[in-house]
This record gives sequence, C-alpha cells and structure tokens, in this order.
Amino acid sequence: MKVSARNLIPGKIKSITNGMVSSEVVIEIAPGVAITSVITKHSVEDMGLKEGEAVKAMVKASSVMLVTD
Amino acid sequence: MKVSARNLIPGKIKSITNGMVSSEVVIEIAPGVAITSVITKHSVEDMGLKEGEAVKAMVKASSVMLVTD
Amino acid sequence: MKVSARNLIPGKIKSITNGMVSSEVVIEIAPGVAITSVITKHSVEDMGLKEGEAVKAMVKASSVMLVTD
Amino acid sequence: MKVSARNLIPGKIKSITNGMVSSEVVIEIAPGVAITSVITKHSVEDMGLKEGEAVKAMVKASSVMLVTD
Amino acid sequence: MKVSARNLIPGKIKSITNGMVSSEVVIEIAPGVAITSVITKHSVEDMGLKEGEAVKAMVKASSVMLVTD
Amino acid sequence: MKVSARNLIPGKIKSITNGMVSSEVVIEIAPGVAITSVITKHSVEDMGLKEGEAVKAMVKASSVMLVTD
Repeated sequence: MKVSARNLIPGKIKSITNGMVSSEVVIEIAPGVAITSVITKHSVEDMGLKEGEAVKAMVKASSVMLVTD
Repeated sequence: MKVSARNLIPGKIKSITNGMVSSEVVIEIAPGVAITSVITKHSVEDMGLKEGEAVKAMVKASSVMLVTD
Repeated sequence: MKVSARNLIPGKIKSITNGMVSSEVVIEIAPGVAITSVITKHSVEDMGLKEGEAVKAMVKASSVMLVTD
Repeated sequence: MKVSARNLIPGKIKSITNGMVSSEVVIEIAPGVAITSVITKHSVEDMGLKEGEAVKAMVKASSVMLVTD
Repeated sequence: MKVSARNLIPGKIKSITNGMVSSEVVIEIAPGVAITSVITKHSVEDMGLKEGEAVKAMVKASSVMLVTD
Repeated sequence: MKVSARNLIPGKIKSITNGMVSSEVVIEIAPGVAITSVITKHSVEDMGLKEGEAVKAMVKASSVMLVTD
C-alpha cells in the first residue's frame, strides 16, 4: 500500500484519552518527544489501538507549518 | 508566544523547492528522517527561509492520522 | 517568533466550551463578528485561556475557502 | 444554502496570483486587514473570481488555531 | 452561491453521534458506501440536521490524499 | 495496513495536472462523479500515478463539511 501523505513518523502509543466522538492519542517518537493526534473514537476502536502499540503518525505536507525563533 | 498547535518538531531545512504560489520545504528532524511541508512562496520569502536554517515543523493535532501495519 | 501561517486575526475570547477531548473557543474579532476555533482541551489548559483574554486566531492559507453569492 | 463551516468572513478580493495548479487569493476584510487563501486555479476560473469582487472567506472551526503573546 | 471547495458529494444522513463539542455525522452516498464527517455540535444544531435528511459532503481538494494497493 | 482516516473512496484517475510543487489529480468515483485531490508532485512521481489507474481517495473525517439547500 502506498500513500500520498509525505510524512509517516514511527512511534509508540503513550496515552489514549477518549471523548464521546473524538479521541486524543499521544505517540512517543523519541525519548521525551511526542506527537499528539486527534482522531475519531470509532477509529481508535476499529483499529484496536492500545497503549504501548507501535504506530505511525501520518501528516499531509499541506498541513505542516513552519516556525522560526 | 504560546500556540495551541500541539506539535512543534525541531529540525533543519534540507531543501526548498519554489513553485509560483506554493513552496515545498523539507526539514530534517533526525539523521535520515525528514518532514515535508507545503507553504506559500510568500511565507518562504517573508520568513527569509534558507537551507541549513533551524526551524520547527508545526502541526495541529487534528491534522495527524495514525497508521498501523 | 515567525510563523508561516499567513492569517493571524486578533480578537478577544468570548466563550470556551470544554468537551472531554476538544474545546470550542469563540473569539470576537470585531463588534458582532466572531471566529470559532476547535482545539484540544489540553491546549486550552496549557495556554491557560480565559474568557475576555486577547488572542489571535491563526489559519493556514490552504485551509481558507472562498464563497460568492 | 447552509454550510457547517462556522467561519464566514466577508471581504473584497485584493489580489489573485495564479500558479499552474494553485492560486493565492488575498481578501481584504477591513482596512489594512487581509486574509490569504490558497485554492485551485480551477476554482478561481470556475467561480470567475476577479479583483475587487465581494467574497466570503470560509474556514472550518477545526482549522483555526490560537496564539497568545 | 458558489464555493471554491471542489468536492460536493450528495448523500443522506445515516447517523448523528453528539459529543459535548463535536458531532460525528455519517452520510450514505451510495448503497453501502458512507462518508464520515466530524463537525461542531453547534453546526448540527444550527443546521437542524436530522437522520434521513439529504445533505452534501464538502471537501477542499487539498484535504484529499491518494492511496494505491 | 490500517489507517485512522475514515473515508476511503475507490475510483480511477481521470487526469493529472502537474505544477512545480503541487499536482491536481481528478479521480472518477462513479460515472460523471469526480473527486479532486491536490497533492505534491513528488507524491505523484513516487507513487508512479498514471491516468486510468485505480486509486482510493482518502479523507480525514475532520476535513469533511456538510452543506444543505
């Protein structure tokens, strides 16, 4: 399977917080470095996501902004 | 300055490709690991972005999807 | 600090509605004109956002659509 | 016609820059205050957008971030 | 009314799940084919959305990714 | 491979328009019904996309808005 989204960052699920519709999933991509994702609770359930599981964070290039000091 | 976007990943600009409206900026966040961003060429010019410069990639949590094998 | 997002609109927080994961924050940008934002509740807490506070709404240009009558 | 996008900000087209695929459209929403939009060139053509024309900038609430000083 | 978003897919509301801030609305676009949308609960209320109602799913072209096997 | 994005709509590539940074890819999902995607030209090249090829359009639920008459 190939995906056009250019950013796929591997990590491990650190925490899952479920709301009624949305869930916040925090992925540790390096010691002390985390990426936060908000997806539907239905996706968390359908994918069977669990803390400690290996996942990739996927981001479309047009959703990435840049910041300088 | 504080920003609600939960993901700020530090890196260094590896390449900039300018189109007429959009620019693709590739940021190296670890050896061999890159994040691609598409922003306006006007932002590249206004920020004075250059290859080798330190930047942060910024992503809103609701733009992050998850993938498992 | 410089940001590639081209739209930064100053206003004042009119209301905050917290869900379990997401929060809706309404910002008044002119008398009777408001912008609605949905961010994570964690961002609301980390930024210490409060009604009446001055904030800027930030939007990436590629997230802006146009409508005509 | 009703739209779920919560943000509809009226303005006037100040400039249009066409690329091969994308176009940057700048909308003046108040004297000296502008919103930048990137849409497809096909949309600019199909809508027949022209400088000086009245339009509304439309933004989904989940695309709005917040910034404080 | 004309909209720059290039994707407008007609369907019928199959289900609405309300959270405190966000709502998940599932739209059947063909027998057995559904599109899921997450919008604010305020939009669901303001539009008076109900199961069985005819709606269009609207997506900006820059939010569409591609996948191949 | 499992993806959190809830919308995967199968179709066939009808046309590809390449800019310098972005490409517009139109996917026919039913006779006379098309979905337009804007992705990077690099993704078009890396995936080797060609007219007539079978692909799926992928959209995150939070990128889907609703419209009623």
